[in-house]
Formats: sequence, C-alpha cells, structure tokens
Amino acid sequence: MALIRSVFQDELDGVSQTLLDLANMVSDSMGKATDSILNIDLKLAEEVIKTDEQIDTVQHDLDARIIDIIARQQPVASDLRALVTALRMSADLERMGDLAHHVAKIARLRHPEAAVPAETVEIIRGMGKVAQEMATKTGQVISSRDTNLAREVEKDDDQMDDLHRKLISTIISMKWDKGVESAIDLTLLGRYFERYSDHAVSVSRRVYFLVTGTFE
Amino acid sequence: MALIRSVFQDELDGVSQTLLDLANMVSDSMGKATDSILNIDLKLAEEVIKTDEQIDTVQHDLDARIIDIIARQQPVASDLRALVTALRMSADLERMGDLAHHVAKIARLRHPEAAVPAETVEIIRGMGKVAQEMATKTGQVISSRDTNLAREVEKDDDQMDDLHRKLISTIISMKWDKGVESAIDLTLLGRYFERYSDHAVSVSRRVYFLVTGTFE
Repeated sequence: MALIRSVFQDELDGVSQTLLDLANMVSDSMGKATDSILNIDLKLAEEVIKTDEQIDTVQHDLDARIIDIIARQQPVASDLRALVTALRMSADLERMGDLAHHVAKIARLRHPEAAVPAETVEIIRGMGKVAQEMATKTGQVISSRDTNLAREVEKDDDQMDDLHRKLISTIISMKWDKGVESAIDLTLLGRYFERYSDHAVSVSRRVYFLVTGTFE
Repeated sequence: MALIRSVFQDELDGVSQTLLDLANMVSDSMGKATDSILNIDLKLAEEVIKTDEQIDTVQHDLDARIIDIIARQQPVASDLRALVTALRMSADLERMGDLAHHVAKIARLRHPEAAVPAETVEIIRGMGKVAQEMATKTGQVISSRDTNLAREVEKDDDQMDDLHRKLISTIISMKWDKGVESAIDLTLLGRYFERYSDHAVSVSRRVYFLVTGTFE
C-alpha cells in the first residue's frame, strides 16, 4: 500500500511539473507575442503561432495522462479533486497559450504596419509585462502551493484592469480620422491580455482552494 | 452488478439532462441579452445578469455531482471519459452564460442610449439569432447524441463567422466623428457572439468524439 501510494504521489508530482512547464511556456509565449507586436517582428510572431501547437500537444498529452491516472488509481476525496483541478488548470493554461497566439496573429496580420499606435505603446508594453509575470508567478504557485503568492496573482490582476481601463480611455481620446481599424485591433488586444490574466487568476485560485479548502 | 450498472446509467442520464438544461438556459439568456441590447431594455438586461448566477449555481452543483459519481462508481474507459467530457461541456456552457451576461452588461452600461448603431442592428440581430439557435441545437446534440446534428452546429458557426466579418467591415466603413466608444462596444459584442458559438461547437464536437471516437 505504501508503495502504491508512493507511485501515485510520483504521478501527481509529474502532473504538477507539466502544469508548471505549461505555465512557463505560455508566459514565454505572451512575452514574445507582445515583443512581436511592439517591434513589428514577423519572425517572432510566427514563432509564437508555431509554439501554440506545441502547447496544445503538451496539454493534450497531460489530460490523457490525468485521465489514465484516475482510471488506474481510482482516487477518492482530495486526491480525485486534485486531479480534476489539474484538468481545469491545464484547460486554463492552454487557453492562455491561445490568447498569446491571438496577439501574435494581430502582429502578423498588420505586418509590415504597426498594429499598435505610438499613443498606446507603453500601455500595451505594460499589459504584456504584467501578463507574462502573472503567468510565471502562477507557475510558481502550482509548484510551491504558496497561498500568499496565489493572492499576489489576484492583486496583479488589478494592475491589469487599471491598464485595460487606461487603454480604453486612450482609444476613446484619440483621433481616428484615418479609420478605426487600429481601434478595433487595440480593443481586441486589450481583451486578450485581460482574459489571459483572468485565466492566470483562475489557476492560482484553484491552487488556493486545493490547499485551504475555501475561496476567500 | 446489473443493478449497480443501472444506477450508474441513471446517474449518467441525470448528468446529460442537466447539461441539456444548461444549454437551454444559456440559449434563452443569449436570446434575451440580444433583445435587451437591441430594444434598449434595461429590465431584460438585468434579468440576464441575474440568471447568470443561477447558471453558475447549476453548473457548480453539476460538477460536484459528476466528481461524486467518479468517486463512488470508479468508472474506467469509456464511462470515465464520458464523465470527464461532461465536466468539460459544463465548463463550456457556463462560459456561454458568461458571454450572454457580457452582452447584457453592455446594454446596461449604455442605457438609456443604444449600444448598437442603426447600421449594425441587423447584423447583431443575426448574430444573436445564430448564437441562440446553436445553443439550442447543442442541447439537442447532448440529449440525442445525433452526430449529423453535431456537424450542423459546425456549419452554423460558418454563418457566425460570416456575420462577424460583416460586422467588422461595417465598423470600419462607418464614420466615427462623434467618437469611437460605440465602435469599441461593437468590437466586443462581435467577440462575445463569436466566442459563444465557438463554445457551442466545442460541446458538439465533444459529443461527436464520444460517439464516434474520432474527430473529423
């Protein structure tokens, strides 16, 4: 029994490790996607778009592994909840990869033009930075189960919300006499960054709940 | 053993029934959200916003029930896959409820002004109609496991994509000399309808995969 428990524990650790890998992959992707759009770097945009396929494969394999563990080990109570939560976290992280991919696709669509007008460059840079850091921190929350760090991710999301409001008010204050195409891009970009950080918060909350048994 | 199997089958049927209920709830919500924004109907918008809490509760209870079934029945192979898939479908449907809620929130935010300018009313009406029908059809796919109907949902999504492209090109062609606030709203609305139907497709594909064992 002790041996079985230990194999199971190894399997759970392996799941956590892959979730951490995914968090780092999507963090890296969002950093590169932001750079690609700000530096009008088509090659980097293509790289992000390609990496998203790898992220999807890792997530797909992870989910198959989790379901296999449930089928073989037949866990109950907290072990089963941890595995179901892992499935949900993997879905959140995969979606974060999609959103980085969406940012890179706007960079590619507008290339060689700049998708981000000068007035909003610093805001988008800030959103990219916060997003990337939130994902990295979320990875640390997954591996450390540090509930204080999980709360920090929630606070970082307030920063994202501030930047998002600032972006929208800047779009509204700008002159668009040459057409609103770029206003549409910026609105979508804002939404992508915002959703990305919502998913990071969601992952951190799930860890928080697993550790404490309560949501705050 | 026959008895246990039968209890388990009843439980699976109960899960399907609740998924169908959820699909009908989010279909109804999106229909009402669209009406609230086109008819500048604050009361209806508030109703959608309130209903989203009920949808979240139904989803939350369903998930707890599914996890409980897995813990008690310890299913393997196709039964376990069906239950894990049910968890994923419930997440998709819950998200569809959120998106209807987002549409209603734009109606509430702009009230008593119209969020949707005259030039785009018919497109938004079309998107709302397609979205609502896709969700209803998705419910039918869940209860009937009809793979032809599941394919139909995919085709309906092409209609949504066409309407979405039409919306974006209309926004670009319009004059925005009084400010782009409404262009931002329309961009987000388009995104909400598009994501809503993506989730409907996702649910239908999951059923398709459960029945056939393959994605097309």
